[in-house]
Amino acid sequence: MKLVIVGGVAGGASAAARARRLDEHAEIVVLERGPDLSFANCGLPYYLGGEIQQRSKLLVTPLDRLKVRYKLDARPSSEVTRIDRAGKRVMVRDRATGREYFESYDKLILSPGAKPRVPDVPGGDLPGVFTLRTLEDTDRIFARLKDVRHAVLMGGGFISLEVAENLAHRGIGVTVVERNAQLLMPFDPEMTTPLVKALRAKGVELILGGKVARILPGAGGTLQAQLADGRVLDADLILAGIGVEPESHLAGEAGLELGVRGAIRVNRHMQTSDPDIYAAGDVVEIQDIVTGLGGVVPLGGPANRQGRIAADHIFGRATSYRGTQGTAIVRVFDLTAACTGASEKTLKRCNIPHRAAYLHPANHAGYYPGARQMSLKVLFDPIDGRVLGAQAVGGDGVDKRIDVLAMAIQGRMTVYDLEEAELCYAPPYGSAKDPVNMAGFICSGILRGDQPQVTVGELVRQQQSGNIQAVVDVRGADEFARGHLPGAINIPVDELRGRLGDVPPGRIAVNCQVGMRGYLATRILLAAGRDVVNLSGGYLAWELFEGAGLLG
Amino acid sequence: MKLVIVGGVAGGASAAARARRLDEHAEIVVLERGPDLSFANCGLPYYLGGEIQQRSKLLVTPLDRLKVRYKLDARPSSEVTRIDRAGKRVMVRDRATGREYFESYDKLILSPGAKPRVPDVPGGDLPGVFTLRTLEDTDRIFARLKDVRHAVLMGGGFISLEVAENLAHRGIGVTVVERNAQLLMPFDPEMTTPLVKALRAKGVELILGGKVARILPGAGGTLQAQLADGRVLDADLILAGIGVEPESHLAGEAGLELGVRGAIRVNRHMQTSDPDIYAAGDVVEIQDIVTGLGGVVPLGGPANRQGRIAADHIFGRATSYRGTQGTAIVRVFDLTAACTGASEKTLKRCNIPHRAAYLHPANHAGYYPGARQMSLKVLFDPIDGRVLGAQAVGGDGVDKRIDVLAMAIQGRMTVYDLEEAELCYAPPYGSAKDPVNMAGFICSGILRGDQPQVTVGELVRQQQSGNIQAVVDVRGADEFARGHLPGAINIPVDELRGRLGDVPPGRIAVNCQVGMRGYLATRILLAAGRDVVNLSGGYLAWELFEGAGLLG
Repeated sequence: MKLVIVGGVAGGASAAARARRLDEHAEIVVLERGPDLSFANCGLPYYLGGEIQQRSKLLVTPLDRLKVRYKLDARPSSEVTRIDRAGKRVMVRDRATGREYFESYDKLILSPGAKPRVPDVPGGDLPGVFTLRTLEDTDRIFARLKDVRHAVLMGGGFISLEVAENLAHRGIGVTVVERNAQLLMPFDPEMTTPLVKALRAKGVELILGGKVARILPGAGGTLQAQLADGRVLDADLILAGIGVEPESHLAGEAGLELGVRGAIRVNRHMQTSDPDIYAAGDVVEIQDIVTGLGGVVPLGGPANRQGRIAADHIFGRATSYRGTQGTAIVRVFDLTAACTGASEKTLKRCNIPHRAAYLHPANHAGYYPGARQMSLKVLFDPIDGRVLGAQAVGGDGVDKRIDVLAMAIQGRMTVYDLEEAELCYAPPYGSAKDPVNMAGFICSGILRGDQPQVTVGELVRQQQSGNIQAVVDVRGADEFARGHLPGAINIPVDELRGRLGDVPPGRIAVNCQVGMRGYLATRILLAAGRDVVNLSGGYLAWELFEGAGLLG
Repeated sequence: MKLVIVGGVAGGASAAARARRLDEHAEIVVLERGPDLSFANCGLPYYLGGEIQQRSKLLVTPLDRLKVRYKLDARPSSEVTRIDRAGKRVMVRDRATGREYFESYDKLILSPGAKPRVPDVPGGDLPGVFTLRTLEDTDRIFARLKDVRHAVLMGGGFISLEVAENLAHRGIGVTVVERNAQLLMPFDPEMTTPLVKALRAKGVELILGGKVARILPGAGGTLQAQLADGRVLDADLILAGIGVEPESHLAGEAGLELGVRGAIRVNRHMQTSDPDIYAAGDVVEIQDIVTGLGGVVPLGGPANRQGRIAADHIFGRATSYRGTQGTAIVRVFDLTAACTGASEKTLKRCNIPHRAAYLHPANHAGYYPGARQMSLKVLFDPIDGRVLGAQAVGGDGVDKRIDVLAMAIQGRMTVYDLEEAELCYAPPYGSAKDPVNMAGFICSGILRGDQPQVTVGELVRQQQSGNIQAVVDVRGADEFARGHLPGAINIPVDELRGRLGDVPPGRIAVNCQVGMRGYLATRILLAAGRDVVNLSGGYLAWELFEGAGLLG
């Protein structure tokens, strides 16, 4: 068996190591266009920021070890320029010498990754305009950093925000220009509000809904980014983090079937339309396990697992890739934002019935020092309660809750299962009712009819349509005074039973700070025969929507 | 509807709040023997240690709020002395006035908790010998602490270890005397080795397999704990953390059906053998969801959920308790130990077929600063791969992995599902192959026959029976020199292919540091036609067993 692997980073490196473990005698050739195999691309922003101090740390498995330990014929700087399917061989160009040669294969795995989009504007190719994909890119940016006082980051995705934080740590002024009205498109917009506030509080300038129209050379080697609205941003460095495209031209030229956005179409064994050719990583089309839609989701975890599965199938193992659920996480200064499964906007786009609930639980027992509130949004099926998606923003413990909810999604578990989840509880780690349990209580209560709720979006629509006539804020007078919904009247929950006559007529909404007191108030008013709903997530949810400019 | 609840802490307080939310008009009477309702019993050790500085923080919901917000007839210092099932009433003694009276009920919820065992030795009732259950207990201990230079803790369970850490923080010398040969009985013994080392490194004296035979008054108000082996420990304070017993005497006297260890037997709606009487919390017998065995598992999370479920059923909701899986966690200085599901010793005792695997992954990407290894043990079904249990000890991220594995157990997921788990990955939070994925790879590899493995226990047994003839350590010479298995020979994995002739004849085991290089070595040797197994968890697993005195 001779296995040739195109690409030696996440998916390719995993495939190579797995292949060797499964077959000691196979000939395994790894062809990597760049000079580095098996490097830590997810670590690049942290190297730029100085948190990772040694460049050598980024080389996860040094070339010598790949060659010796895994007995790989690992060839850096070796670019595959053509796939000859009929001849079962690839053409390789040695980038050091320029020599071209054919390499035959029995099985081929394509794991070339995805290439960052280059800004398609005049000046997008000027020196000083960078993308960040490889160690070489990183070295080029790093070499320039000492002269950079201000950087413009095009795009407000995961990598841009990681770079923004890391450049800010270096004392570099940062402007992020995102053409959408929100950061981090996998999230629903309101869930990004805490990040927007944190970035601005740390001095990062954010321009949402902004578009770089052209890039001009400035004085003394600097650059100017001209926005479509005429604004001009001076920059010593411009980094484009505006998405990636599957590097599928070789596959396309070879006639392999392509899917969404030109990504290589594969079956669940990662096999392309040519049974001797497999593909893995950012270059493949995946199925979303919640929506069933095909898509391109460039993430390190799936890439590694896909590479492994391709090798498994080649060497006779029956593993299969089950689809991607889009679990992702980013640190932005002292905040963590994470998501898994489908967002509400995706569910809407796919016409998948859903309900949403918001909560703001503390990461651990409130009586133990250091408790910190997070904002958590859970999306679930309105009939059977299956968990469809979750998003959270906060401090410690956000990653844990999203991981727990990711397992719930993978296991096709329901919000009723979340009620009963038995999670670690001691005061430094959680609460007797963990945030995940609380989410289960709230969502199940909605389905059982015990907790009639509206989201902020639904409240606004029902107010506009006249379906909700008044809002009663059941927090204390002091909390109410610090900010409240427009037109709300204040009746603290502890006074509500004695002041039922003060509650306005008609269908009303109640709100508190996070939804707990509002829930009790809703129950009190329902018992009094009133038509009432609770505002999911309370005033804090309102602030999320307000901060995202969603309230008009 | 008149609902009477006996006990106003975890289960009782949850039941009361839930009942009010479900029925605004019900009469709800909460009778609590102690002076405090709804206090944070899990926080008591941290208050003793000074981490929680204000006593008031331990009152989760103040009495006034219970009365006003939840409209509860909440009566502290009210001890129920008898249940009159025929008359549907309880006899109550007001501990402040001594007055006795009957309180009638339509439905009764018993949530009296469990009482700490008092040392059944001469002197076990001397002043200065304490148990820790209530705020009153805490106040009594706290008042004495300023004069305490040395404390003896009887028992090495969760609460004792939390108290040990907290007293040590105060500069108090601590000796822990545990009658079993290991700490924390829910764990397998080898998994407690890091805790033993950490406690001793912090100056806590540990006496395992030790028994306090009598307690004597010492000079000047001090105490002496005499051990069965004759040793005498001087102490200014003795705290007994030697387990709890369900406080079920009322239920027993009333003829309610009792189960294991006298705990109240309930159905899945938390209903006792009297359909008008429910029970919740540490007083009830639970079914273990893995073993199916009845048991008593005093944990805050289950208690709170059980109280909620009892109220649900009384007010017509169809929720049910699904059993307990024993998820638990404890912090011991800078270590975290957590477990979920069944331990190996429990599976053995129940004759449930199982396999075990050990691994020592880092909590996040190794190239990102601060990565720290944890020890993780996963137990799974040898036929279908269902996850049966997990235990972990380490630093940050232990709680997250055990919570993720708790969801896998709840969802009846398999080790094959763990392979495909899609968890949060960015360098500060995890790895492209998360520890949970790694556990899945290893366990699945065992089931598929790709990773023949033995645990340390199996290795020792097979060496003794002559079934394993030699151990080859495939680490580097420097690692080997720092410590290795008795009789092992050293052939570094990177030299193995060229030194196959140096491998001893017969069936052999290989080991490395954590199991990864051993896995590759096993594959190399299998390909060479050798009969070989890898030591699960490598030399670090060996050290766990050695530290627990399990190697004879």
